[in-house]
Amino acid sequence: MTEQGPSRRRFLGGAAAAAGLAAGAGVAAGYGIRSAADDGAALPGGGATDSSSGGRADAVVPFYGPRQAGITTSQQERLMFAALDVTTTDVQELQRMLGRWAAIAARLTAGQLVSDSPVRTDQPPFDTGEAMDLGPHSLTITVGFGPSLFDERFGLSARMPAALAPLGTIPGDAVMRPAVSGGDLCIQACADDPQVVFHAIRNMVRAARGTAVLKWSQLGFGRASATGAGQVTPRNLMGFKDGTRNIHADDADALQQSVWVDPADSADNDAQAGWMAGGSYLVARKIRMEIESWDTDPLTDQERIFARHKVSGAPITGGDELTDVDYEKNDPGTGELVVDVNAHIRLASPEQNGGIRLLRRGYNYTDGQDPDTGKLAAGLFFIAFQRDPHAQFKVLQTRLGRSDLLNEYIAHIGGGLWACPPGVSAPGDWFGKNLFG
Amino acid sequence: MTEQGPSRRRFLGGAAAAAGLAAGAGVAAGYGIRSAADDGAALPGGGATDSSSGGRADAVVPFYGPRQAGITTSQQERLMFAALDVTTTDVQELQRMLGRWAAIAARLTAGQLVSDSPVRTDQPPFDTGEAMDLGPHSLTITVGFGPSLFDERFGLSARMPAALAPLGTIPGDAVMRPAVSGGDLCIQACADDPQVVFHAIRNMVRAARGTAVLKWSQLGFGRASATGAGQVTPRNLMGFKDGTRNIHADDADALQQSVWVDPADSADNDAQAGWMAGGSYLVARKIRMEIESWDTDPLTDQERIFARHKVSGAPITGGDELTDVDYEKNDPGTGELVVDVNAHIRLASPEQNGGIRLLRRGYNYTDGQDPDTGKLAAGLFFIAFQRDPHAQFKVLQTRLGRSDLLNEYIAHIGGGLWACPPGVSAPGDWFGKNLFG
Repeated sequence: MTEQGPSRRRFLGGAAAAAGLAAGAGVAAGYGIRSAADDGAALPGGGATDSSSGGRADAVVPFYGPRQAGITTSQQERLMFAALDVTTTDVQELQRMLGRWAAIAARLTAGQLVSDSPVRTDQPPFDTGEAMDLGPHSLTITVGFGPSLFDERFGLSARMPAALAPLGTIPGDAVMRPAVSGGDLCIQACADDPQVVFHAIRNMVRAARGTAVLKWSQLGFGRASATGAGQVTPRNLMGFKDGTRNIHADDADALQQSVWVDPADSADNDAQAGWMAGGSYLVARKIRMEIESWDTDPLTDQERIFARHKVSGAPITGGDELTDVDYEKNDPGTGELVVDVNAHIRLASPEQNGGIRLLRRGYNYTDGQDPDTGKLAAGLFFIAFQRDPHAQFKVLQTRLGRSDLLNEYIAHIGGGLWACPPGVSAPGDWFGKNLFG
Repeated sequence: MTEQGPSRRRFLGGAAAAAGLAAGAGVAAGYGIRSAADDGAALPGGGATDSSSGGRADAVVPFYGPRQAGITTSQQERLMFAALDVTTTDVQELQRMLGRWAAIAARLTAGQLVSDSPVRTDQPPFDTGEAMDLGPHSLTITVGFGPSLFDERFGLSARMPAALAPLGTIPGDAVMRPAVSGGDLCIQACADDPQVVFHAIRNMVRAARGTAVLKWSQLGFGRASATGAGQVTPRNLMGFKDGTRNIHADDADALQQSVWVDPADSADNDAQAGWMAGGSYLVARKIRMEIESWDTDPLTDQERIFARHKVSGAPITGGDELTDVDYEKNDPGTGELVVDVNAHIRLASPEQNGGIRLLRRGYNYTDGQDPDTGKLAAGLFFIAFQRDPHAQFKVLQTRLGRSDLLNEYIAHIGGGLWACPPGVSAPGDWFGKNLFG
């Protein structure tokens, strides 16, 4: 393997070669080279349409950089998440695919089609086309490596970070469904338009053909966390504000402390896991809510479970949404703690867990009707980024899974753990290049 | 049964009575009476957030009127569709539920919570709360009655319009799945925010408790038709513009001709079906696309199937997106028709079908991974409104199902037929009141 991006150039080079062969009547001039801006100019509205999202249609989040976008990026409105399994055992094929992915992600996040090579009309188009007029809508594409990628197939076992070791069975995990859990690779696509995220995942999966296959995917239809200081706290499907105390993207200290893998984290085993410096670990959990049961729960009980007021988001110990919770406050009448010992926010809060924090990027979801129960299949697709999932998510979730009052109304039914390497620095670099170097 | 709305007043009256009982410390002041405007005022941003959609968050589509909204309403970006089965056999219970639905739909579409009665903290909230800060986002709620509602249970069989007779098995319908087909009732919720449509369906289903249960539902994540003259034609998941020649909301002649049931349609059997005058028939089809196969089809073949160019939407006989198709044009070289005899637009076009037209309101969808095939479960949730489905949809779909070149890449896997009665005229009126009168 050379040091240079193997697949980006092969991919684009191959396309260019194909175009050369096809010069003439067989080439759909313009198809392959349209960018969002080109398309916009051709639209009746005179620009990329802004009708399908809140963010600006032409808003671009830079792709190249020391860290992957989609982690501290101010949370977009829509998600499509995909888990894939690698089908090849040829490590170079895997690397070429990661190179193709980087090249495609760079283009799609800039509002361009998958390839700028002219398409041959006697070949399938490079791009599936459904996002052609939509603009990038702040698209980010974030890639991660699951623990299973580090088995014997690719010779990577010696490079597996300790932090990526499987989390084991956490209390409450007994109902996790293998069909929507794990995967050698993951792709998190976020944007302010659902068709843009669908298009991104579809074309990334298409570019993996012959190398990896889709294992499962999830569309998120509404934000369930705020990651920017200016963002209004959205509500989860239980009707409560979610993410009031999330880490904000401008809190550099918290990000350094809790989100980004530090070079020092692997100082004693640099050869093993140094490739993750500047990356972050992604934990996803598909959390089904027992919507019908929740909807019959009295307001006081709902507020006792969260220890927050439903409408305002204020702690039940007083104040407004941003007021600190008084975990020690007693009810003067009964003498009992106002915030139940097993209230959700007590078990999850940094103050009650030695300062442990997660950067959450959750989305609400619905899958329609659950064919087994007839109930509405809906809930929270929880995503959290962190420096060390064993020291962070696992500690918190062990406590929550064991005692959270909310457990009567939720079930963790899927998800996984992935190592998201540092960013793709420039054209020629690719996702996780240092892992293979 | 009186002439007056039975259930709206019972519902609100009941809530008010409950509130009266609960006056005092047990009442969560303000919770029950918050409107979108109230919520907006309390938000950090100083107004209802506009961050989750393209339309204005506070945009309201009037609910009361001679016709139901959501039919000619300029198509919103998001859909949740639900089919329900009635579980009671008491026709008055059914009527009360339809009255509750009208009262709730009037409130939700105005950006209000389900009820303005104060909530008792020892009771479940009237509203599930997840759309509390979002604004109405042009929400429309459209209700329809399926053929199965007119069986022996409610004494309605003599009132069933001929137009609502089941369509029978149309070519290609053999793979329709009962689990996602039919239903005594349907609700189409459209808005520019997915959480708003989810909230609407969830709360309508909740208000049906004890009277009807959810049978199946579908979330649509992207428009696949334009219904307004100013709307940019969106793309389906095959990457083609869809709806270029759709009926526009300002084309009064076409709406009268093809969409609205005319009083004269039932002049000879007024007692039977006169209640549908001013209504429209909704046909839904869940059309799965064979995404992976389509993505390997050469561009020329894709364009041959649709007889349109993929990027521009122009007919392959020349011109731009809005140019008329020249169905008789021959290729000067081969002498053959340029537009294949089985091209999708030839089989579906008004010109080739005696002027038959449909008002389409389709949405793209994805259900993630198909557990049986491992493929991406995605496609088009087709919705069309029309004056007589037997003379319109059935004629077109019989031809398409038999011969459409597109059939290699699609399958109709679910859907149904519902009669959407005229609009709810004012408070006290309700969905289909004249059917029961």
